[in-house]
Amino acid sequence: MSGSIFGKRFRVTTWGESHGPAIGAVIDGCPAGIRLDPELIQRDLDRRKPGQSRFASPRREADRAQILSGVFQGYTTGTPISILIANQDPKSGDYDHLSNVYRPGHADYTYQQKYGIRDYRGGGRASGRETAARVAAGAVAKQLLAEFQIEIMAYTYAIGSIKIDPARFDSTLILKNPFAMPDAEAASQASQLLDQLAAERDSVGGTIECIVTGLPLGLGEPVFEKLDAMLAKAVFSIGAVKAVEIGSGTQAAQMRGSEHNDRYRYADGCLVKPSNHAGGILGGISDGSPLRLRTYFKPTPSIGQVQQTVTAAQKNVDLTITGRHDPVIVPRAVVVVEAMVALTLADYLLIGAVSRIDNLKRLFQ
Amino acid sequence: MSGSIFGKRFRVTTWGESHGPAIGAVIDGCPAGIRLDPELIQRDLDRRKPGQSRFASPRREADRAQILSGVFQGYTTGTPISILIANQDPKSGDYDHLSNVYRPGHADYTYQQKYGIRDYRGGGRASGRETAARVAAGAVAKQLLAEFQIEIMAYTYAIGSIKIDPARFDSTLILKNPFAMPDAEAASQASQLLDQLAAERDSVGGTIECIVTGLPLGLGEPVFEKLDAMLAKAVFSIGAVKAVEIGSGTQAAQMRGSEHNDRYRYADGCLVKPSNHAGGILGGISDGSPLRLRTYFKPTPSIGQVQQTVTAAQKNVDLTITGRHDPVIVPRAVVVVEAMVALTLADYLLIGAVSRIDNLKRLFQ
Amino acid sequence: MSGSIFGKRFRVTTWGESHGPAIGAVIDGCPAGIRLDPELIQRDLDRRKPGQSRFASPRREADRAQILSGVFQGYTTGTPISILIANQDPKSGDYDHLSNVYRPGHADYTYQQKYGIRDYRGGGRASGRETAARVAAGAVAKQLLAEFQIEIMAYTYAIGSIKIDPARFDSTLILKNPFAMPDAEAASQASQLLDQLAAERDSVGGTIECIVTGLPLGLGEPVFEKLDAMLAKAVFSIGAVKAVEIGSGTQAAQMRGSEHNDRYRYADGCLVKPSNHAGGILGGISDGSPLRLRTYFKPTPSIGQVQQTVTAAQKNVDLTITGRHDPVIVPRAVVVVEAMVALTLADYLLIGAVSRIDNLKRLFQ
Amino acid sequence: MSGSIFGKRFRVTTWGESHGPAIGAVIDGCPAGIRLDPELIQRDLDRRKPGQSRFASPRREADRAQILSGVFQGYTTGTPISILIANQDPKSGDYDHLSNVYRPGHADYTYQQKYGIRDYRGGGRASGRETAARVAAGAVAKQLLAEFQIEIMAYTYAIGSIKIDPARFDSTLILKNPFAMPDAEAASQASQLLDQLAAERDSVGGTIECIVTGLPLGLGEPVFEKLDAMLAKAVFSIGAVKAVEIGSGTQAAQMRGSEHNDRYRYADGCLVKPSNHAGGILGGISDGSPLRLRTYFKPTPSIGQVQQTVTAAQKNVDLTITGRHDPVIVPRAVVVVEAMVALTLADYLLIGAVSRIDNLKRLFQ
Repeated sequence: MSGSIFGKRFRVTTWGESHGPAIGAVIDGCPAGIRLDPELIQRDLDRRKPGQSRFASPRREADRAQILSGVFQGYTTGTPISILIANQDPKSGDYDHLSNVYRPGHADYTYQQKYGIRDYRGGGRASGRETAARVAAGAVAKQLLAEFQIEIMAYTYAIGSIKIDPARFDSTLILKNPFAMPDAEAASQASQLLDQLAAERDSVGGTIECIVTGLPLGLGEPVFEKLDAMLAKAVFSIGAVKAVEIGSGTQAAQMRGSEHNDRYRYADGCLVKPSNHAGGILGGISDGSPLRLRTYFKPTPSIGQVQQTVTAAQKNVDLTITGRHDPVIVPRAVVVVEAMVALTLADYLLIGAVSRIDNLKRLFQ
Repeated sequence: MSGSIFGKRFRVTTWGESHGPAIGAVIDGCPAGIRLDPELIQRDLDRRKPGQSRFASPRREADRAQILSGVFQGYTTGTPISILIANQDPKSGDYDHLSNVYRPGHADYTYQQKYGIRDYRGGGRASGRETAARVAAGAVAKQLLAEFQIEIMAYTYAIGSIKIDPARFDSTLILKNPFAMPDAEAASQASQLLDQLAAERDSVGGTIECIVTGLPLGLGEPVFEKLDAMLAKAVFSIGAVKAVEIGSGTQAAQMRGSEHNDRYRYADGCLVKPSNHAGGILGGISDGSPLRLRTYFKPTPSIGQVQQTVTAAQKNVDLTITGRHDPVIVPRAVVVVEAMVALTLADYLLIGAVSRIDNLKRLFQ
Repeated sequence: MSGSIFGKRFRVTTWGESHGPAIGAVIDGCPAGIRLDPELIQRDLDRRKPGQSRFASPRREADRAQILSGVFQGYTTGTPISILIANQDPKSGDYDHLSNVYRPGHADYTYQQKYGIRDYRGGGRASGRETAARVAAGAVAKQLLAEFQIEIMAYTYAIGSIKIDPARFDSTLILKNPFAMPDAEAASQASQLLDQLAAERDSVGGTIECIVTGLPLGLGEPVFEKLDAMLAKAVFSIGAVKAVEIGSGTQAAQMRGSEHNDRYRYADGCLVKPSNHAGGILGGISDGSPLRLRTYFKPTPSIGQVQQTVTAAQKNVDLTITGRHDPVIVPRAVVVVEAMVALTLADYLLIGAVSRIDNLKRLFQ
Repeated sequence: MSGSIFGKRFRVTTWGESHGPAIGAVIDGCPAGIRLDPELIQRDLDRRKPGQSRFASPRREADRAQILSGVFQGYTTGTPISILIANQDPKSGDYDHLSNVYRPGHADYTYQQKYGIRDYRGGGRASGRETAARVAAGAVAKQLLAEFQIEIMAYTYAIGSIKIDPARFDSTLILKNPFAMPDAEAASQASQLLDQLAAERDSVGGTIECIVTGLPLGLGEPVFEKLDAMLAKAVFSIGAVKAVEIGSGTQAAQMRGSEHNDRYRYADGCLVKPSNHAGGILGGISDGSPLRLRTYFKPTPSIGQVQQTVTAAQKNVDLTITGRHDPVIVPRAVVVVEAMVALTLADYLLIGAVSRIDNLKRLFQ
């Protein structure tokens, strides 16, 4: 496996299995001189942590991030930042019965076939637990971006068919309800839906929207590494994602050019776009408008209903997955989407810095 | 700009501007010993070529691919394959009036701001013409994939709100109508729509579906370089793409786990999945099922209507783009989607080959 | 800093400062299915460990490697292998007086200027302690190479002007004397030299030779990533290295073609080269002969004599470095050279596996 | 083969075989806004060109570089710069007798074994002709470096045992004598030696020294991508190189610390180092002193004497290589060393620009 390193200049390596002693992330390429606040890392980890509401997996993890290197007297030194998060509540014995059976919708079968061996406990490397390391690294990236007043906000846009209503949008609610929904009424409906799903031992998918403001114009590298392409890759690397849209997204396919083209105007000496179907990116390069991205998640594959599947010994069996699992992964994935967007933008900020000789010369004066 | 190289093992560099002397691609990392048929490269280039129907831009380009290196006595030698395509019909004078104005929906503004200079003739590097180089490289990748019986088929799934009907699906039509639609009736409707758009000097978006069969199980590198993530990046790097779906796509967000999970069964000694919501990928690794991917394109931004925009000198102006342009880019983009999927799969075939020590040992016996 | 990741397919990230809580390495891309013996990692770490003889720094470190991920039931799983080594004897207080002064021959000045901040305790990231993480990762690479009967042996070739005598070469001595010298008499002379250097509060340089046997033909990627180029880079990345030779090395410059060219002969159905001036590599590709590489190290810059230097406040000062330091770094660097060679070869084994379509097809049968 | 791309930010892909229709280079990542003078590219190509003296191969090549993309109105645009050099005098028929025999000291055998196929005409991809593409790309890199007053000067330091005498050093001679030697007397001796070698149908090796002045402090990325390591890799990738030294080089191994450590002093407000054993790099980072590097080349393997070798059919044969070849490659390789150093430094200038947050913020003001 050679896919656990993300980025080109702000490079993050994550490691660790769900039921090993720990998971972690190493960031290579973070610029020196950033005042790094460990509390901001912890705050994001807490948003992802299990066991926080009756709508999420009750696994108990403190998820305390230890910074082992790369920070001196409170500042980044330019050397690799190693962050370790201990696993505290693995309960590995729970998984022995899954060692030879492939859970539908999970990666059990493909990992086994690809590698010939897998740590079957809790999904091993394919577990959602791996995303805690992304969140920790993402929180470092956010602190880099904050130096440039770039802000990333994601929230639950939909759970099943329950969508937030833009007319009721209230961003202060995102951190207040267990669904990360900026709409109190939608959150209340979601609560009812999840109770119903619990009764039916079923799960549901959902959608996360992410808005980035303050993004400077000029990030993104054509041709193959357009900013939208790299963001799509970044969020598509989160397990359970099945679709990604930028700006007008799937709607673009049904629109006319006269409608979709964002007009340019100068007003008070500033260039403005009255519309933003582009979602903040043109030709793969950020255009200074807010970046808008939507990510669609499939329903949690672990459900309590009986499911048909097969064993490694090629037998057809009926499988009942015990234990409680998140009936919808979306609320906990909100901060993971933010992390992946932050990692991408931090990387592109460093990459894009040297696209012009005049800029470059300013650095060496 | 540092984004013109694609892939990690099967690495393609494209170069060239719309109105320069030529464009081209260099492939580094193609294995030795593949019988390379130049006609298959030409055939794909011809599918993308302008001027072939009244529904496409009338620019005249022979688009003949010259292979300058990497092939000896008809076989690849393992050294870089350089392919050059001369530009024959640039008509650069047409573009002088665009040197200081930013066309809505195009990359003019972002390139100018990012680089401080741009070749404004025909969109320069951001022109769709750049995709001819991708198609040439993709045709090499397809010949590598063909050695493993992997086949890629893309087609127009929708133009505006006109969708193909699965009940009428006929793959032999893809190369026969100017819309690359595997449905004669939908193609006929599209023809009417485009005549209407021509009259209105407008354009429309559309959707391309791509199916890959014969893909072996095991391609894709978790965690950050999942096969779906890399495919999403690859097709999102095509200009005008606004959304990408794998398998169930956006629909997944509204489904239940009991419905979305693909069951496994053994039948006649083979593992089968009666459904394929996963779209052929689980945990970022191909599962042996057909890969299914949809890409959504925005409408062509070049339209004949008057548009509001601004100049480099910060003036508000009305712009009318003259000349004829593709009223919908989708039919010509079909082979570009195939190319990007082929380049991704060729890369992952090489990457995935060494994930197990037992496989690796077989190579050195 | 973005240089702490080594390799393309067998990728190692190291992290950690000399006086932080720990150092470590993460390996991404190790194939699955290798039986990994932690004792072999420990054995190599013990060869590098300080405090083992009166000729080495007396810092006390257990240097116990903890494997935190990537291994399940004794076998590699293909997921990242994270190895952590705790720092136990930092004595950071010793270094406060060095916070504002630049030690000659060390990286103090360049780090401070490049990053604007540095962890000055014990050299921080630039400390030789960082190489423990390389050794741990190298020991994993060696176990991969052992599956192919590839063996790496390095030893001290010279300390100052004391060279080993090929006529007395005895490889069993390498692990037995504190100088890693395969020649008892040279080791005895070195012992006297080092006692004299201790009395003079001085240090000396030396040379390490590395021989690799069992290397299959075909490793190395022309043009820019020739095997010799990558080996040179790998060992040159060890602090204190000032020169690298492959095969005939600097001598080649004075030789005639008729003398330097290695003849080919077939004998008993095998191709043999009676000489090996090439050092096992032709055209950047291994030729099946033993690989031979020499690395030249400068003398340890930390010496007890008074030295002229400057402070961060731009004052000229006299500096006396207290504490005991290795009077020659070479004996402890022997296993570091082995590690860097092992990491390079492991990487190239994976890279080279897919250079031919016929090989590749064998994998997917 | 996947080794034909050099660099991380200033990325050069070369392609082409000795007897194909052309060779070339594509540069991805060159910053926009550099005034690019094609004559400077041509001047460097002319320094490498064959057929210029009776001491070099008489192959006739105009070696005219065509720039096909990436430059608009005389300035780089930030898009890939494609440079093509046509092959004019291949005389491929000359090589048919070499299709099944392995020339000693050449890459024939290793290429054939690695790839199973090779273009045997003139060495194919392994030909020194490939370095023309490096020189063209290097000349672009030099123009980037010139914006920062960084200058690179290489020259022949030794041919066989004939060394230049520092007391007679005259840099104006480098471009004036056919040996690129900055010492008229040494050049005269070399002339005699080469006449003698011609009579003996033999060849000889030599040494190139390269000095870089004006290099800013701070280039180089510890740990694995130290500037010295990357320079070593860069020049070691030139065919025929057997050793590389930085600063004190092999001599360091015999020196004492008290002698080798470069003292620091402040004089007139500037930090100075009275000596430069480091060769301009400490801890892998440039220290502001001149960079000093030596490269040792083996003798040209193509000699007119009868040589013992084998055929692909496993027969022992005597081989006589006809035609005239360079009796020493070093004079023509001088500009190739410059090119590789330039490419490395251009890359590291871009890489190093973003190591500090304060620098980075200046870019976005």
